[in-house]
Order: sequence, then C-alpha cells, then structure tokens
Amino acid sequence: MVQSPLTIGVFDSGVGGLTVLRALQARLLGAQFLYLGDMARLPYGTKSAQVVTTYTLKAAAALVSKGAQSLVIACSTASSCAIPELEALYPHIPIIDVITPTVAHVSMYGARDILILATQGTVSSHLYKNLITKTAPHICVHEVATPLLVGLAEEGWRDPHIVSQVLDHYLEGFKHFDTIDTVVLGCTHFPFHLDAIKLYFGSHVNVVDTAIPAAEKARSQWPSVMLDEGSTHYYVTDSPERFRSTAELFLSHEIPSDQVTLINL
Amino acid sequence: MVQSPLTIGVFDSGVGGLTVLRALQARLLGAQFLYLGDMARLPYGTKSAQVVTTYTLKAAAALVSKGAQSLVIACSTASSCAIPELEALYPHIPIIDVITPTVAHVSMYGARDILILATQGTVSSHLYKNLITKTAPHICVHEVATPLLVGLAEEGWRDPHIVSQVLDHYLEGFKHFDTIDTVVLGCTHFPFHLDAIKLYFGSHVNVVDTAIPAAEKARSQWPSVMLDEGSTHYYVTDSPERFRSTAELFLSHEIPSDQVTLINL
Repeated sequence: MVQSPLTIGVFDSGVGGLTVLRALQARLLGAQFLYLGDMARLPYGTKSAQVVTTYTLKAAAALVSKGAQSLVIACSTASSCAIPELEALYPHIPIIDVITPTVAHVSMYGARDILILATQGTVSSHLYKNLITKTAPHICVHEVATPLLVGLAEEGWRDPHIVSQVLDHYLEGFKHFDTIDTVVLGCTHFPFHLDAIKLYFGSHVNVVDTAIPAAEKARSQWPSVMLDEGSTHYYVTDSPERFRSTAELFLSHEIPSDQVTLINL
Repeated sequence: MVQSPLTIGVFDSGVGGLTVLRALQARLLGAQFLYLGDMARLPYGTKSAQVVTTYTLKAAAALVSKGAQSLVIACSTASSCAIPELEALYPHIPIIDVITPTVAHVSMYGARDILILATQGTVSSHLYKNLITKTAPHICVHEVATPLLVGLAEEGWRDPHIVSQVLDHYLEGFKHFDTIDTVVLGCTHFPFHLDAIKLYFGSHVNVVDTAIPAAEKARSQWPSVMLDEGSTHYYVTDSPERFRSTAELFLSHEIPSDQVTLINL
C-alpha cells in the first residue's frame, strides 16, 4: 500500500526559512511541503514578541487550512515566542521549532562556550541562553543581535567583506573571541552567509546551522518510507516575483512561477 | 482671537518620517503634530505597491480619526503609490507627499543630471523619473535602489564606512559619477546618513533631503500665525521603546514615554 504523503507546513517571515526547507527536503524525500513566507510583514526580528506571535498564529492557521498536518516554524524569532500558543491552539499537530533541536544538539556534542548570533527579538527572549543553561549548565552562552544580516540575506546579497564589517560592528567590545568554540546561526536567514561567517570566526569554531538539527528532528519524527514523490508549494503574502528570485538563490534551483501563490492573511 | 492649532498627521513606516517631522516642526511652530510610525509592518520599500497602499490607507484613517486635519505622507514609498487613493478618499483634507515638492524644487533650481537614491518600491514606480521628465524634460534622471540604507537608519547605525560600502555595492556599474550634479535622498530614512552620503559624492554634488521641500510646501500652505505652542504626539504599531530610542537619535532630543502610544491598525 502506498502511503499518502505527509503534508508539512513550513513557515518563515520571508526567505530565511528556505534554509530549513532545503534541509527538510533532503531528509523527507516523499513529503509534500507547503512553504509560507510572510513577505508583507517581514522582518520579524525587530518586532515585539506579541506582534510576532499574532503574525505566526495567522500563518499557522493559513497552513493548516491548506492541509498541513504538521508545522515547522522555520523562523527563529517566531520560535522564540510563539510556540506555547501554537501548541495550545493545535494540540494534535506536531510542531517543530528551530531552537530546541539546536539546543539539544549543542548540549550533546560538547560545546563549552557558545556565541548565539540572532535577531533582536530572539536575543531579547533569551530562550537560547535559558534552555542551554537548563540542559547543560556548564556551557557559557553569549547572545548578540546582528539584525542587518537579515536584510543582506533578504536581498540575496552575499559578500564576505560586508558580512565581516557588519560582524565587526555588532561584536565591537565582544571579549570572548579566544574562548568561543561554537557559533549558532540563531536566525534562519544567516546560513545564507555561512561561508563568510565561517571565514570570519576561523576554522577552529564550529558554526551551527539550526536548519540541520531541526530537519534531523523532523526525520526522526516521521521516519516512515514514503513512496510518492514529494512536492513543494510556496505561499507568500507579498511580492511573489521577488520571493522567487531570492528563493532561487537560497535553494540553488529554479522555482516555476505556478508554484508560488500570493495569499492574504 | 487665538486660533486653534492646526493638527497635522505625519505618517511613515517607521522612524524615517521623523526627518520630515523635524523640518515641519521648525517651520510650523504652533502646529499640533500626530506622528504615526507603522513599526509593526516596516519596511515598506521592499513591499508591493498594493500592500503599501493598503497599509497607508489604514494609517491615514487612524490619523484622521485622531483629529488630523491634514496629512503629510513622510514616506517616499507610500508617496510613490498611495496618493491618488488617499486624495480620492479624503477630498477635503490637504495631503502633502514628499515626492512632488522635491520634483518642483530640483526642476526649478537648475539641476541637469540627477541621481535618485530610493527604496525598490519607489524606484519601481519611476514616479521621480516620470514627474521630472514631465516638468523639466532636459534633466537627465537616474534611479538606483539602495534598500540597505533603510535598515541601517532604522537601527540608528551611523557609520560613513559602511554607508560608503553599501553605496559602492549598489552603484557598481553606475557610469555617471562625473556628470551628476544632484543626488535626491528619495527615501525619508536616508537623511539620517546625510553627512556620509555628502562625503561619498563630494562637495560639488547637491544632496537634496526631500523633507525640506515638503516642509516648505506645508509652510506655504498654512502660513497663518498660530499663537498656541505646538505639540507632538507619537503613535506606533509596535515597539514604542525601540521607536523612542531611535527617534531620539533622529530628532536629537528626548521624547517622554507618555508621548508615545502603541496602537493597533
């Protein structure tokens, strides 16, 4: 018997969650993905937890109404504030965020001194610090907001020099370059700059893309073989053509225009 | 008889319109200003004309309901797309945008070769180019989108080196450095970087802050002496504290927290 494909709703403020979608597609070949990018209201990282939660609940409702049987919150800012309300609203829908799998990952593999780069919203929540300290109290955690990396990624602008200058700016006064062993890209937009960030911190520092632990958790949650071929459809709240052109940079493949639908939340 | 103060609603996606507010305050000392920053949905410059128009109409309705007798659209992106609909909806309310006064200004003072720096939304509208060409067909107009300057300003990050790099990036391939005599800061966020932009283009280039022609137009529209002392109240759709701290950088004075009210649009 051919199992009907699992439909996974993947949500982000814009194109950043595509880094998570890509990791999920590679691990759940037969799944049907519904990706929602809230282009009309991005970025989330500079907005309050209350506003981000309101937007996330609307997006989740749209994905569930389109058939999502599970949700991946592929936005760190939304993951940092909206999960309790989402779980309360959808008790029967598995919800995966990008923060808790990353915390489990870094706590397990032996990190001792971690720098979290994230949006202002995620840093203000201190969720990374609190969760890591709870799981592995011996780990030292620093959190620094680097919001401009979001704008660079949303524009599809990859440039190691500018990334380096932006990091210099935000890390002015940061005193732990000698001791940090791990940098967590605590915003799903940041893996777009992965090479530049690795170059900046040097090869002795482990740079963690939160998409990987999140996608590994999804695979362990839905391990069943799915024989149908998978598919992906994209919904955006604004600018489908702009989304397509940047998304193609993120995913390194073409997206046919009939796979991107404009919706109103 | 003391005239009751004129109430002017000033609207922007965030803090950028404060550059216009400041110019208005300096010229209309007795007016009462209601400033609305749509922090929950900024930036506008990367969003479609349709979405920006919808947001602008909601903001205008909020300002009118709070007593605004006139509106200044202190956002270039909103000015580039929403004015016809605003004028149709509010035929009895004077509406000043930031683009048409600037076009009149540059057409009159003898510019010959103009570079418009703006958001993607304003550039895509080609409103500057079309209006200038209509008014003064001998003027050569180039339009370049420099969206990252918005993010830098919203964060209150002033740094001539990074502004210079950002301009280098966007102006790569621009062939008219030798002939341009005028640069229009076609986004109300950009005057935050005024010194850095002047330094970049050199002292032979006239850098135009659209706030000045817009505020001059407002003064000529409401020339009556107002004896009451003016006042300003701020409304934001998100993050009043973040707004306050950046706004103080823009306005170079303190804003008491009871002058900033969070509203929902």
